[in-house]
Amino acid sequence: MKITEAKVIVCSPTRNFVTLLIRTDEGIYGLGDATLNGRELAVATYLEEYCIPCLIGRNPFDTEDIWQYFYIGAYWKRGPVTMSALAAIDMALWDIKGKVLNTPVYNLLGGKSRDRIMVYCHANGTDLSQTLEEVHQHLEMGYKAIRVQTGIPGIASTYGVVAKGEKYEPATRGVPHESSWSTEKYLNFIPRLFSAVRDKFGDDIHLLHDCHHRLTPIEAARFGKEVEPFHLFWMEDPVSEELQESFRIIRNHTTTPIAVGEIFNSVFDCNRLITEQLIDYLRMTIVHGGGITPLQKVAHLAEVYNVRTGFHGATDLSPVTMAAALHFNTAIHNFGIQEHMPHEPLVDEVFPHAYYFRDGFMYAGDKPGLGIDIDMALVDKYPYQRAYLPLNRREDGTMWNW
Amino acid sequence: MKITEAKVIVCSPTRNFVTLLIRTDEGIYGLGDATLNGRELAVATYLEEYCIPCLIGRNPFDTEDIWQYFYIGAYWKRGPVTMSALAAIDMALWDIKGKVLNTPVYNLLGGKSRDRIMVYCHANGTDLSQTLEEVHQHLEMGYKAIRVQTGIPGIASTYGVVAKGEKYEPATRGVPHESSWSTEKYLNFIPRLFSAVRDKFGDDIHLLHDCHHRLTPIEAARFGKEVEPFHLFWMEDPVSEELQESFRIIRNHTTTPIAVGEIFNSVFDCNRLITEQLIDYLRMTIVHGGGITPLQKVAHLAEVYNVRTGFHGATDLSPVTMAAALHFNTAIHNFGIQEHMPHEPLVDEVFPHAYYFRDGFMYAGDKPGLGIDIDMALVDKYPYQRAYLPLNRREDGTMWNW
Amino acid sequence: MKITEAKVIVCSPTRNFVTLLIRTDEGIYGLGDATLNGRELAVATYLEEYCIPCLIGRNPFDTEDIWQYFYIGAYWKRGPVTMSALAAIDMALWDIKGKVLNTPVYNLLGGKSRDRIMVYCHANGTDLSQTLEEVHQHLEMGYKAIRVQTGIPGIASTYGVVAKGEKYEPATRGVPHESSWSTEKYLNFIPRLFSAVRDKFGDDIHLLHDCHHRLTPIEAARFGKEVEPFHLFWMEDPVSEELQESFRIIRNHTTTPIAVGEIFNSVFDCNRLITEQLIDYLRMTIVHGGGITPLQKVAHLAEVYNVRTGFHGATDLSPVTMAAALHFNTAIHNFGIQEHMPHEPLVDEVFPHAYYFRDGFMYAGDKPGLGIDIDMALVDKYPYQRAYLPLNRREDGTMWNW
Amino acid sequence: MKITEAKVIVCSPTRNFVTLLIRTDEGIYGLGDATLNGRELAVATYLEEYCIPCLIGRNPFDTEDIWQYFYIGAYWKRGPVTMSALAAIDMALWDIKGKVLNTPVYNLLGGKSRDRIMVYCHANGTDLSQTLEEVHQHLEMGYKAIRVQTGIPGIASTYGVVAKGEKYEPATRGVPHESSWSTEKYLNFIPRLFSAVRDKFGDDIHLLHDCHHRLTPIEAARFGKEVEPFHLFWMEDPVSEELQESFRIIRNHTTTPIAVGEIFNSVFDCNRLITEQLIDYLRMTIVHGGGITPLQKVAHLAEVYNVRTGFHGATDLSPVTMAAALHFNTAIHNFGIQEHMPHEPLVDEVFPHAYYFRDGFMYAGDKPGLGIDIDMALVDKYPYQRAYLPLNRREDGTMWNW
Repeated sequence: MKITEAKVIVCSPTRNFVTLLIRTDEGIYGLGDATLNGRELAVATYLEEYCIPCLIGRNPFDTEDIWQYFYIGAYWKRGPVTMSALAAIDMALWDIKGKVLNTPVYNLLGGKSRDRIMVYCHANGTDLSQTLEEVHQHLEMGYKAIRVQTGIPGIASTYGVVAKGEKYEPATRGVPHESSWSTEKYLNFIPRLFSAVRDKFGDDIHLLHDCHHRLTPIEAARFGKEVEPFHLFWMEDPVSEELQESFRIIRNHTTTPIAVGEIFNSVFDCNRLITEQLIDYLRMTIVHGGGITPLQKVAHLAEVYNVRTGFHGATDLSPVTMAAALHFNTAIHNFGIQEHMPHEPLVDEVFPHAYYFRDGFMYAGDKPGLGIDIDMALVDKYPYQRAYLPLNRREDGTMWNW
Repeated sequence: MKITEAKVIVCSPTRNFVTLLIRTDEGIYGLGDATLNGRELAVATYLEEYCIPCLIGRNPFDTEDIWQYFYIGAYWKRGPVTMSALAAIDMALWDIKGKVLNTPVYNLLGGKSRDRIMVYCHANGTDLSQTLEEVHQHLEMGYKAIRVQTGIPGIASTYGVVAKGEKYEPATRGVPHESSWSTEKYLNFIPRLFSAVRDKFGDDIHLLHDCHHRLTPIEAARFGKEVEPFHLFWMEDPVSEELQESFRIIRNHTTTPIAVGEIFNSVFDCNRLITEQLIDYLRMTIVHGGGITPLQKVAHLAEVYNVRTGFHGATDLSPVTMAAALHFNTAIHNFGIQEHMPHEPLVDEVFPHAYYFRDGFMYAGDKPGLGIDIDMALVDKYPYQRAYLPLNRREDGTMWNW
Repeated sequence: MKITEAKVIVCSPTRNFVTLLIRTDEGIYGLGDATLNGRELAVATYLEEYCIPCLIGRNPFDTEDIWQYFYIGAYWKRGPVTMSALAAIDMALWDIKGKVLNTPVYNLLGGKSRDRIMVYCHANGTDLSQTLEEVHQHLEMGYKAIRVQTGIPGIASTYGVVAKGEKYEPATRGVPHESSWSTEKYLNFIPRLFSAVRDKFGDDIHLLHDCHHRLTPIEAARFGKEVEPFHLFWMEDPVSEELQESFRIIRNHTTTPIAVGEIFNSVFDCNRLITEQLIDYLRMTIVHGGGITPLQKVAHLAEVYNVRTGFHGATDLSPVTMAAALHFNTAIHNFGIQEHMPHEPLVDEVFPHAYYFRDGFMYAGDKPGLGIDIDMALVDKYPYQRAYLPLNRREDGTMWNW
Repeated sequence: MKITEAKVIVCSPTRNFVTLLIRTDEGIYGLGDATLNGRELAVATYLEEYCIPCLIGRNPFDTEDIWQYFYIGAYWKRGPVTMSALAAIDMALWDIKGKVLNTPVYNLLGGKSRDRIMVYCHANGTDLSQTLEEVHQHLEMGYKAIRVQTGIPGIASTYGVVAKGEKYEPATRGVPHESSWSTEKYLNFIPRLFSAVRDKFGDDIHLLHDCHHRLTPIEAARFGKEVEPFHLFWMEDPVSEELQESFRIIRNHTTTPIAVGEIFNSVFDCNRLITEQLIDYLRMTIVHGGGITPLQKVAHLAEVYNVRTGFHGATDLSPVTMAAALHFNTAIHNFGIQEHMPHEPLVDEVFPHAYYFRDGFMYAGDKPGLGIDIDMALVDKYPYQRAYLPLNRREDGTMWNW
């Protein structure tokens, strides 16, 4: 069996997605997601110009060798562009393998380790009362776990928050929006938020919070310590994530569980976080982490050190990645939770999928492969449109993590 | 002063180069190199589609803020594509700054710390006698330091080696060439090579060797130990470089100095190598390391820990990077050595430059900025042509580091 | 371009300052501060007798080489006298470089990374009510960050505190004043101080406190822990600073951020504090730390490890150092805060400067070089007068850190 | 008993010395050495302007309190100028204490732990044969331990070496001499030197060597390993000494004993070297280390960790320091060896002393106090003359450790 064709599809049904479609000489094709939010075309070029010519003629079952071919073969390894391209190849090959064997991909990864996948949703409000209302609405929708973000008094715009009635989507047209940031105001307000949420909704729901890389290690330690009474499921991305040892500072001071990794793309971004047990949940996604093949290895390493997965799952990942994640989550032992930020209905139309949400949980479905497809007729209607994620500056103008 | 225009120039005078040209409202322009060997167009797309729209209108003197803007602002940080794009921006801005202030860039980086830049060249032979002849020829050319690579009996093709009379250039047209590898044959032969070189040429020349990432840590430890009698200037890239702690194994066993880093792109790729003093020379280049701005920071860190620079300088870096490196090397305190693999004459025609080689040393020249230009008429004659670096497999077919 | 003359100017407009003026063959001159509070003439001798004869004829652009010349060349390296002398040379050379290139020094250090420099002031009272009044007054003056020190009941005189209406200036004529100290009384009282300040002024201002080296590590750990509810911006100089590992004890117990370094003069005084992330803010000043050249290196090291600057800025540093600090603070990425203890008007007359204070922030100004001058006519009116910093003893007579 | 007067005497009987003379109300006076080679007047100013006014009226028996007064009281602690001044005060007080109690100082430090003090001398030659001749001559003089330095082929001037018949004295008039350095040539030659010395003189003499800070850690490791067959007593100052952890690299590779510390001035310069057992001999001298008081503490710490003393004893220390060192060496348990570079006869005339050399050993003598005096009449004949130690550059012009 041989790969005969591969093509990159860039479309923008409300937001940009990069999809790789690999065809074989037996007529079967597979899909992979290569979307790197705000940098889509660089990945598309990477695939088209460098990877695809080398794919033709290879046996799609050789997922390990092909992965190493493009990982080692790049010479300049790692990085979001490289690894997103590689992830798309890997996902498409697993999809093909499942389809050829006529079995869901989870069966190739170890079978079913659980019946259902707990997901968490986003409740975002511009102020405390709107946020509480959002929490309420998501509980009504059946979610058992809710990430809560709120507007901070004195800060014009806050990560994860939009005006009532709007849908949160950070990437925008034109040059990047620049928001303003005050760590001090944030740190003073958030414990009050979680106090209010627990007061109103009790202890039985899982509460999560995303610090979005904006604290220093000692500030994150204070944060974790101060929210301990509210028993967060996790605090996410407390600090800039390049320096793994910075998590030791946080870890020494608080028992609030820590999640990190949505911008990681290699085991070497987190090997110390895992082996020193500095985190509890790893968020490195299949699309940015290089595919199912390397994520399986990372999950295996994490299992040894009591770290569970908590994959990033915002709308910047296409349904292809969501499908892959749900198969993965179904099979591995040390699954923790899965982020769920539902796509616009149009996105689901472009990418028809077997997976579904029911009462706070998601299910991979039982179709062969990843159970995902792409509607090529719809794709052409929604061409790529440049959009950027926002940037962020401290109040004195210093560039800061968004 | 404002940036008014930026454009990406991809040309292939014998090999591919990606160049960024930034223009200002005062008519002055600067050049930056964005070449990522074998992945050129992905960087070009990254610059054109994401960076350039955000550059227009900025003050070119704000090198630190602009760097952080594109580094932090990418959200998915690091990686060779991202950092090569950022390097091109940063180099071009320093070039502009020097031109506007009418001074060579080295004066902005601390002035002259030395008179001349020691470089090392490559002596490559398919067998021992050809290699010894190559060493001889390079000594005649004035080089004081020579990297010696040789064909290994029983291995069909070896890294760094070509048939007599040909020029070594690893990237080739068509799909990547796959070479074959035997660590055992290599380890058995190389000590004999250096024994022969020292016998013939004595102790007064600097000898270097590149293991090209192909050993395991304990094999590299053996290698270092066995070549100790021949006093190598360094052993380069002894092992795959992602796992920084693997260098501890080597370090515990041998006093042969270690150089690594030509594929690094961030201080976080090497901060432990430096602070734990596991290496002696850092090879992270200006083009792949994100520019002059971050390299200055890394060099400053390295100075504290007795690590010197030994920048990669093969032909895959354009003369723009060589110019930037020579200004950098002139100014910083902890310069060690600079690789020098001369470009084809046509490349020097396309990129006229102030720097020059004389009797084993290079000199940055004293022109304002980086002292480099691009001949736009010539550029159009040599359009991009896809070429790949080779891949490498062990004798049993296992994908291995090239 | 060559240095043709250098002279040391010692003057005492209300307090002693040592200034180095370096002239070049092109008529341009630069200024550097060499003031070491209470040890001024030793630095002046060091400059006059050892440094100046070696400066003549050198190229003022070679800041790195000249720095190494006097650092390495001293053979007995480091120490406050040596490094203050070297700092004056380095500052004056950067001033010259900026003037020759007709650009503010911040442009040579990376351009503008922010619009404004947050400063903190001193609110000192002999008792709680006077201290609260002082805080109030400084808020009225526009400060966003205030260091609060207070007289401790049962201790005759306390660091940083003077009678109402007097201006705090620790150095005095005659032999040194000896104050008396009780750690126990201090530790019991300070949490009440900050409780009162937060009660009265709320959470929106930054509060700082200086322990002035007087605690043991475990006492400092208790201190930090007990003031956590009041969210200090930092606790400064908690312990005697020679033993870097003693900060680990503090760090293990409290999330109160830590600042230290006003008496450091070398990266080797703080390299472990930084790389082990034991502190949050580094206070080593440009004048005592050896100049802009080494401070840039230290800031670059600190950036990797999430440590920000918080330069010492009391009146013992002349306006030349303040100017250099503001240019530095404008350019580096990891600026935190700057101390601001305004000079007497007479000092500002002697040293006319481009920098200014407005509404809680300072600005470097946009003059070429450091934007600072010295009024040679005024200088002669205020000759040096010996003055000492106080000393401190525990209640039983044991010599203790002041 | 009170101090009534103190004065600083700067004289230059062939080379510069700074001496502090402290008088008491009982007519007894003591002497201390404050010589900081090449920086003499800065220390003299430090003493005259800051220390002496505070000494008057104090009880000379309070050596600990007075030491803390000037150490802690300086606020900006440590450094060669500060600590040399403090050392002079401390030595003079111990001299007074001994004289008042009518007993040699060694009796106040623990009495006699040994009968005689083994010293090592210098054998320096411009080439191998001259060096061997020098070794021979010093053996004839009775020395049991000899430091051997030699001219290196291809290096114009080498540390510690002068033309035949001249006396080695590094400090020279005029601006500093700049020598040139090649680590590679040095490393290639020295093992041959020691091979030749052992061949000619056998295994029964102690051989020492001074690398004079010029190697990197890995080079020093190689050096130590390659001279192992010749059983050096020690290798001295292998690397630049600021980064204590750099000695770990050396220590991992070689059993050649290591000595360091002649430029240290505080226990904090060597506490890790001692507690991690990275060295075998500590060379921090009484004059630069702040006096007898702190050196006793450091020796006590070193005793715990099997580190012995090996005090610096070149001619830049006056006979006052030599006297203090010999009393110290007589008393402490963990004495190792003492450097002995005899002063010119004129120096011995200016500083008449009880100590003496006999057959390879030195003896402190049994006079009260330190057994040292100064001839005030002679002093005036030899006024201070500025002289500098040399500087050193690598062959490419890079400033390097001398």
